[in-house]
Amino acid sequence: MPNVRLVIEYDGSHFHGWQMQPGVRTIEGEIERVLEMVLREKIHPVYASGRTDAGVHARGQVINFFTSQEQPDVLRVAHSLSNILRGQLSVLQADIVPDDFNSRYSSVSKQYTYSILNRLGPAVLDYGKVWYIGSKLDPQRMNEEAKAVIGEHDFTSFRGTGCNAKTPVKTILESEVLVDGPFIRYRVVGTGFLKHMVRNLAGTLVDLSRDFLSLKSMGAILAARDRKQAGVTAPAHGLCLDWVRYKDESAAGAAR
Amino acid sequence: MPNVRLVIEYDGSHFHGWQMQPGVRTIEGEIERVLEMVLREKIHPVYASGRTDAGVHARGQVINFFTSQEQPDVLRVAHSLSNILRGQLSVLQADIVPDDFNSRYSSVSKQYTYSILNRLGPAVLDYGKVWYIGSKLDPQRMNEEAKAVIGEHDFTSFRGTGCNAKTPVKTILESEVLVDGPFIRYRVVGTGFLKHMVRNLAGTLVDLSRDFLSLKSMGAILAARDRKQAGVTAPAHGLCLDWVRYKDESAAGAAR
Repeated sequence: MPNVRLVIEYDGSHFHGWQMQPGVRTIEGEIERVLEMVLREKIHPVYASGRTDAGVHARGQVINFFTSQEQPDVLRVAHSLSNILRGQLSVLQADIVPDDFNSRYSSVSKQYTYSILNRLGPAVLDYGKVWYIGSKLDPQRMNEEAKAVIGEHDFTSFRGTGCNAKTPVKTILESEVLVDGPFIRYRVVGTGFLKHMVRNLAGTLVDLSRDFLSLKSMGAILAARDRKQAGVTAPAHGLCLDWVRYKDESAAGAAR
Repeated sequence: MPNVRLVIEYDGSHFHGWQMQPGVRTIEGEIERVLEMVLREKIHPVYASGRTDAGVHARGQVINFFTSQEQPDVLRVAHSLSNILRGQLSVLQADIVPDDFNSRYSSVSKQYTYSILNRLGPAVLDYGKVWYIGSKLDPQRMNEEAKAVIGEHDFTSFRGTGCNAKTPVKTILESEVLVDGPFIRYRVVGTGFLKHMVRNLAGTLVDLSRDFLSLKSMGAILAARDRKQAGVTAPAHGLCLDWVRYKDESAAGAAR
């Protein structure tokens, strides 16, 4: 059975997260609905590099599925998904990959960007894509604190409730805060992430900058291994999965 | 009477252009409606650096108006506009300026960016903010052609019908095409622009890249002084007014 891989962009505000659930419109559910129309067979499961939370966006999510069609027209699949889910989901790349490719287990690393809009007026052109904070933040300080999580650490302080990962130890490869006009962007690359981990890191960087926390550094919060010492969970709509990288190839995804 | 200047961002898709017209929702009309509520007096006219076409966005439009209130609370005006027109218009800066300041006539230059999305899948996260073109364009060639309009020229070939400017001669200070991930962005700075001029320049750069035109260079099209020799008028929703610059000060606006 051919193994089809798609790189997709989606606006998380149109879906109740990735995972199929009865009675709600999810990314997995909508993709499977369209695939059944196009390929004339039930496609399940559709694998993803990771399940994004409700409201989280993606510019380069990677998914794969198997079809019984011997020579599936992957471009037709791509155009059908992009057209039927217009403005909500778009296919950026479509190809047939080896049988042993799995979008989740074959991944080596992935990048998320958390976007904050920090200025007088709330978001308009980036409405629903950024966390608006009117009070002045200190991006230089946030960048210094962001560096502290690089490496292999126990991320218990940044682990969301209900996380079912076997271990709270994760490896962060890159972590920095960049100023981009009125935006402050937290960019983080890791081999894997706990539930809500990026949103908790972003919220903690903001709360450190606002001086809302008892512990005054990312290092101290990390060492505490206590979720209560970290900051707020930043809202889902500021987060975007940029790309996923696989063995022996460059990153799949739209962002740089 | 105090002269109040505001720097504003807006999403052009929510309005029928700048200028007040009976029976339609315009940016000028909505601003005057809110100002009357906040300042408890009829405010008219509200001056703008220029009237953007219906559908065109702004990240740094500059406007000004006079009020009879001796000490107007400009921050309250800013917050009221941003809150009442939430998601549609936002005030980025508010101050009181000298009487002789006029957002249109005091301006020295302004920058527009025309954004094209050039990849397999249509826009999702930038839906309504970019012109989606699926066929592969040649941004290097577009950049070379874009340079040809720098300087003082007769822009008759790029003048929209109904343009009431006294002369078709305009001065372009910067003109370039940049690649930004899957986006191709045409950035142009000028002292002033004719009606539809930036959209006609962007459409012509695209049509030159697609080899849709008889004349094969921007220079030849400019020299022809004939609108029929230039390319298509690019759709309004890909265009954004980034900033407006004034004498003796830096650019007012959100973009870099």
